[in-house]
Amino acid sequence: MSTLMNYTYQSFNFRGRKRLRPFYDLIYSIAGEEYGHIEVVSYAINLLLTGTTKRGFDPEPGPLKKATDARNSRHFIASGQASFPMDSMRDWWTGQNVFSSGNLKLDLLHNFFLECAARANKMRAYEMVTDPTAREMVGYLLVRGGVHVVAYARALEQLTGVAVTKLVPVPDLSNKAFPETRKYESSGLHRILYTFSQNDYQQVGSIFNGPHPEDGQPLEVIFGSPEGVPAPDLEEEPQLNAPGSDGIDPDMFAAAAAKMGIKF
Amino acid sequence: MSTLMNYTYQSFNFRGRKRLRPFYDLIYSIAGEEYGHIEVVSYAINLLLTGTTKRGFDPEPGPLKKATDARNSRHFIASGQASFPMDSMRDWWTGQNVFSSGNLKLDLLHNFFLECAARANKMRAYEMVTDPTAREMVGYLLVRGGVHVVAYARALEQLTGVAVTKLVPVPDLSNKAFPETRKYESSGLHRILYTFSQNDYQQVGSIFNGPHPEDGQPLEVIFGSPEGVPAPDLEEEPQLNAPGSDGIDPDMFAAAAAKMGIKF
Amino acid sequence: MSTLMNYTYQSFNFRGRKRLRPFYDLIYSIAGEEYGHIEVVSYAINLLLTGTTKRGFDPEPGPLKKATDARNSRHFIASGQASFPMDSMRDWWTGQNVFSSGNLKLDLLHNFFLECAARANKMRAYEMVTDPTAREMVGYLLVRGGVHVVAYARALEQLTGVAVTKLVPVPDLSNKAFPETRKYESSGLHRILYTFSQNDYQQVGSIFNGPHPEDGQPLEVIFGSPEGVPAPDLEEEPQLNAPGSDGIDPDMFAAAAAKMGIKF
Amino acid sequence: MSTLMNYTYQSFNFRGRKRLRPFYDLIYSIAGEEYGHIEVVSYAINLLLTGTTKRGFDPEPGPLKKATDARNSRHFIASGQASFPMDSMRDWWTGQNVFSSGNLKLDLLHNFFLECAARANKMRAYEMVTDPTAREMVGYLLVRGGVHVVAYARALEQLTGVAVTKLVPVPDLSNKAFPETRKYESSGLHRILYTFSQNDYQQVGSIFNGPHPEDGQPLEVIFGSPEGVPAPDLEEEPQLNAPGSDGIDPDMFAAAAAKMGIKF
Amino acid sequence: MSTLMNYTYQSFNFRGRKRLRPFYDLIYSIAGEEYGHIEVVSYAINLLLTGTTKRGFDPEPGPLKKATDARNSRHFIASGQASFPMDSMRDWWTGQNVFSSGNLKLDLLHNFFLECAARANKMRAYEMVTDPTAREMVGYLLVRGGVHVVAYARALEQLTGVAVTKLVPVPDLSNKAFPETRKYESSGLHRILYTFSQNDYQQVGSIFNGPHPEDGQPLEVIFGSPEGVPAPDLEEEPQLNAPGSDGIDPDMFAAAAAKMGIKF
Amino acid sequence: MSTLMNYTYQSFNFRGRKRLRPFYDLIYSIAGEEYGHIEVVSYAINLLLTGTTKRGFDPEPGPLKKATDARNSRHFIASGQASFPMDSMRDWWTGQNVFSSGNLKLDLLHNFFLECAARANKMRAYEMVTDPTAREMVGYLLVRGGVHVVAYARALEQLTGVAVTKLVPVPDLSNKAFPETRKYESSGLHRILYTFSQNDYQQVGSIFNGPHPEDGQPLEVIFGSPEGVPAPDLEEEPQLNAPGSDGIDPDMFAAAAAKMGIKF
Repeated sequence: MSTLMNYTYQSFNFRGRKRLRPFYDLIYSIAGEEYGHIEVVSYAINLLLTGTTKRGFDPEPGPLKKATDARNSRHFIASGQASFPMDSMRDWWTGQNVFSSGNLKLDLLHNFFLECAARANKMRAYEMVTDPTAREMVGYLLVRGGVHVVAYARALEQLTGVAVTKLVPVPDLSNKAFPETRKYESSGLHRILYTFSQNDYQQVGSIFNGPHPEDGQPLEVIFGSPEGVPAPDLEEEPQLNAPGSDGIDPDMFAAAAAKMGIKF
Repeated sequence: MSTLMNYTYQSFNFRGRKRLRPFYDLIYSIAGEEYGHIEVVSYAINLLLTGTTKRGFDPEPGPLKKATDARNSRHFIASGQASFPMDSMRDWWTGQNVFSSGNLKLDLLHNFFLECAARANKMRAYEMVTDPTAREMVGYLLVRGGVHVVAYARALEQLTGVAVTKLVPVPDLSNKAFPETRKYESSGLHRILYTFSQNDYQQVGSIFNGPHPEDGQPLEVIFGSPEGVPAPDLEEEPQLNAPGSDGIDPDMFAAAAAKMGIKF
Repeated sequence: MSTLMNYTYQSFNFRGRKRLRPFYDLIYSIAGEEYGHIEVVSYAINLLLTGTTKRGFDPEPGPLKKATDARNSRHFIASGQASFPMDSMRDWWTGQNVFSSGNLKLDLLHNFFLECAARANKMRAYEMVTDPTAREMVGYLLVRGGVHVVAYARALEQLTGVAVTKLVPVPDLSNKAFPETRKYESSGLHRILYTFSQNDYQQVGSIFNGPHPEDGQPLEVIFGSPEGVPAPDLEEEPQLNAPGSDGIDPDMFAAAAAKMGIKF
Repeated sequence: MSTLMNYTYQSFNFRGRKRLRPFYDLIYSIAGEEYGHIEVVSYAINLLLTGTTKRGFDPEPGPLKKATDARNSRHFIASGQASFPMDSMRDWWTGQNVFSSGNLKLDLLHNFFLECAARANKMRAYEMVTDPTAREMVGYLLVRGGVHVVAYARALEQLTGVAVTKLVPVPDLSNKAFPETRKYESSGLHRILYTFSQNDYQQVGSIFNGPHPEDGQPLEVIFGSPEGVPAPDLEEEPQLNAPGSDGIDPDMFAAAAAKMGIKF
Repeated sequence: MSTLMNYTYQSFNFRGRKRLRPFYDLIYSIAGEEYGHIEVVSYAINLLLTGTTKRGFDPEPGPLKKATDARNSRHFIASGQASFPMDSMRDWWTGQNVFSSGNLKLDLLHNFFLECAARANKMRAYEMVTDPTAREMVGYLLVRGGVHVVAYARALEQLTGVAVTKLVPVPDLSNKAFPETRKYESSGLHRILYTFSQNDYQQVGSIFNGPHPEDGQPLEVIFGSPEGVPAPDLEEEPQLNAPGSDGIDPDMFAAAAAKMGIKF
Repeated sequence: MSTLMNYTYQSFNFRGRKRLRPFYDLIYSIAGEEYGHIEVVSYAINLLLTGTTKRGFDPEPGPLKKATDARNSRHFIASGQASFPMDSMRDWWTGQNVFSSGNLKLDLLHNFFLECAARANKMRAYEMVTDPTAREMVGYLLVRGGVHVVAYARALEQLTGVAVTKLVPVPDLSNKAFPETRKYESSGLHRILYTFSQNDYQQVGSIFNGPHPEDGQPLEVIFGSPEGVPAPDLEEEPQLNAPGSDGIDPDMFAAAAAKMGIKF
């Protein structure tokens, strides 16, 4: 959420974007990817929570008993075993996390720091879990977040001439120490920036170029989005009445639609 | 922010979406539009703030003096005369505003209430301002938010058989009392739902159909997005060093890009 | 707390109460009952916490050792094993939870939603616990909260002509699925609204009438309060110095009072 | 809110109330009065806000224009020119303000401090306003809050033998410096504690007795409530749609009620 | 943090300090000691967290696995197994905890209450733990906090003539019930106030004098600081990259410094 | 507060300080100065607020009337026209502002960003005010904060070999554009780091050395503190009862002290 909302508001608030177009394109492109990341994290949480309590319609046996041992019982009380915009200590995300000074050098410095700090969090989260789904997700985010680290470092370099990419990685341990990152790196995902649009953000390549600071491979811009993966169909949890509405017959919609001439 | 994040997380968290596909499509489609609405609001704020202090590089004359009279001095201290995810009393948006119980009937009831409450806020905000830009934006949002009110009312009707659309409008005053809404209504914008995708969310039409509860015109689904308007290029505010970096020559990028074979 | 404070402030803030007296009477009557509910919940918490640590005056054996395993250690650090206005994830209640737009239709819609959302919470809390005291309390609150759901649905019906009571129950599972509710329902507690005053709020019956939406029995208003139950005398917890003051002799007060002619 | 909720939760949480009954009775009695005080403050705010914007149904002239100059625009956006549980800098009340350690001496010390701090706030609020309604309310609250100061001081005296009442007044300036307090003091309101019940809290007199620390008149307990004042009927504010529902005919209710045999 | 920041801001904000110098000196002296106390608490936390996860550079075995069972996982995600300004339920400290009314009697009454409330917390924290390091720290803080209780009681006595020290101890249980306090008390640490300066705060002795209210020994002021204890050198935690920077050779600094003529 | 508490907790939490001693010394030295800065800011606020309302003991004329026009009425309600740990929009400081990852490179990067962001705030605050006292304070803080910017940049340079000091200044406008900074710069205050201790933190010079990035003058370490300025004696504000206690005779203390043999 923090990276998403920082870059989204910095894009909205970007003054003088004609003169400094490549920087605007860079921030907007990364904002685009961050939306996908809150989706990925949300689905990972939802899949990890699916099936964790006893399924059934009858409340009497206490199907949610195990929830009293959960770190965060909100997943069971306030949602249908699903995600919220809150952190692992269940503090809610807040707009106070958005930094948008309007000064380009300062905003880029902030973003570079923010991505490094997020990277430290991911590294430690990885070390806390051994579940393969969770590690897969963290591994993927380390690789893609690593691209954002490099992108902001490159932007500072272009703006100031200081070799900021040489600070990478922060913390010092390389992504290569995390086995799940390797297949993503070998397919080049650690050196490609997507613009999430075919026609906009064309100038991002004048910043995101040159060798990757860790392995020297060429940084590359792809105009458009990576190939998507269909969102999983989350199973129902009847003990939580999620989604409930058990009398609804999906064919009913089809029939009604047909009558109205709506294509299904 | 609240409508955007409610529908976004409800979509991510939607269990049993195969069986209840039209409802999922509806919530996801509206989430798509809400992203556009935070952008619209942000640009309206940014344009209203543009040029409100004395421009110039020299701090000595106190170019930001007027900011000490501003309701919200954060626009001048913490941003470059621009927007943040906070409310008009400058409280930060928080994830606590997200309701996502996982029970479809309850979530739809929440969303119907939320859109009505947001509508009341817009009506009162309209009455507080006479600036035409601000009123234009509020008029537009009243029309489009009105579509969301009807959409959630229709969803509850489909799910329960209760004539929820007959509660509309809440509060009782019609959008037609706000002159700026008229041109949007006459072009049909008050009865069209967009899916923001050509191929997904095809089943939304089995819910969003029938006559509009206020004027009886047919509700309609358009698969895709409304035609966009280019984002304004916000002028620089040098007294805030927004964006600063005055030594940067945009041609430099073009030249550098040309050398690397990057198309501008 | 949220239901209590919403209805309390909506009552204080009710404009035009002469013209719309029955609605005012309804909201005020329900506010009255909600005060009793925070009392019931508080006593349930206090009784569940009574005796959960080793009693005694000596700190050396570490009588509160078990508290480090508690979900919420505030009960042991900040109170004498007792309640606070906070939720089950120990977030404090805040006035931000009060919705009071002043528009009657919108406030009633909010209240109907709020009671349904509170009902979902209760249902899930029930499924988390098997302790009979806790379940008894939740069963009772489901029945009485169910009355409030129907009351606000009836109010919306009266105001708009839309059959809102037909949305009940939200979520779909009936209170009858919870065994503890049955004895309360068979004594009629699910269809009686109390006014908590013999003489005020006389017009509430023009709203709260007709058949109960689930079992068709007649809705009924009782002017006054239900028969109370004496509050339990909570045992002392000396290891928490709660209440301490061990040198105080209750007879001292009686003697002193006698001298002053105070009746005990 | 803070005094109300502190004493309410301290009462619910009071352990060993048989042994220490007079202290329980005292805290519960004062909690009872504090409920009346939030009502008084709420009505004072609502009356001060009544009629402060231009009345009418038409939004076009911008009837709420003046609200943009208000310290707290929430009264106009989020309520119908009415009150919320928030402070004068519009921060929401939160449960974190409740102190309830369970140790009697400590809780009484807290309450004594809290009443003195509230008194300082009232004194300064008085000095900020010259509106007679506002000053009347503050004058009344200074007198009644002064009773609570003395009550907690007396309780500490009884418990410990230390002459805590001799600390009164805190701050040093006497209530007598505020002209509006005089008529209340001459009717004895500064030395009477109400129990808000005919039959309960009978032992409070063994604490609340003796001479008032400032003027030496006898402290007195009245079993029951002071004579009430009817709540004002707040005028409608149509420009805020508060309460709206203009098509409702009050006679309709009477007719409907008559048919059902309901007495109006 | 709360005691530190209360006394620090009360010192900064103290009006009329010439006339009331001894009170100013007292508050400033205690503020000085509180800084040392946040340091002591921080080091105790850091030492207790040192070595609690498996050390090593390799993330693959999941060295932080145990952190998912921790009450507060922030120590492992957000810090290098170290402290933050938050409470035991991991709520952040906030400036809202500072009371600084500017009225001396009221501020002293607050401080006396605050120290008693902090004392109750310490007593309960002691009863929750049996670890000797933790108990040693709590024992020490009970003794030194006890000095602050007496100091503020004496200040109120001097200001008002009321025998406030006779309220001590609050809660009633004496520090002598906690074995770890005894060696500190026998060395007189429960009756000595330090000024943390040789030359300032000379007038504090006109308040802090007379017999200690519990054992009658003479209260004493020492102008200056107690003898310090060197801060522990916290071991590295490589699995948290704390501090990382493994390529840094400490001799490098020495060599570089030597060249620049810097003394090591 | 944020800079103070960040560096204070990073110092307490610093692991491996033997190996990385110069960095520890640097962070601790800067923490020492930040304590002085909250003092300076507090006194500036207090002096600006002194005498801003009508002085006198009588509440009747409403001496605090002007406070209802103040941006932040807390200075008048909650303090004696004095400071609190809150920001210019009166949000309270919170521990959430502390970043202390334990990874040295990341913490230094944070601190460098934090100082640059604080610098941008100061520059904008300067442009908002023309009062000479306020500008003098901001000018001084710009110079000293500029030293901290350079110190963290140098630390990152030493740790990584990247020329981080070349990023300075962020934002681009130099301190030299603010006239009040000039006399401080000409006395060298922009290139001197104090350790606030004669004997500790001896190794800071191995980091803080070389030419200043803006004017090339040599960076210098002074072991000890800058010469202090006596704190102002804030005048009394009787209308706020700050400090009150008007019956206290300062000679009383002297006499009492003399009897006890206490030197004044």
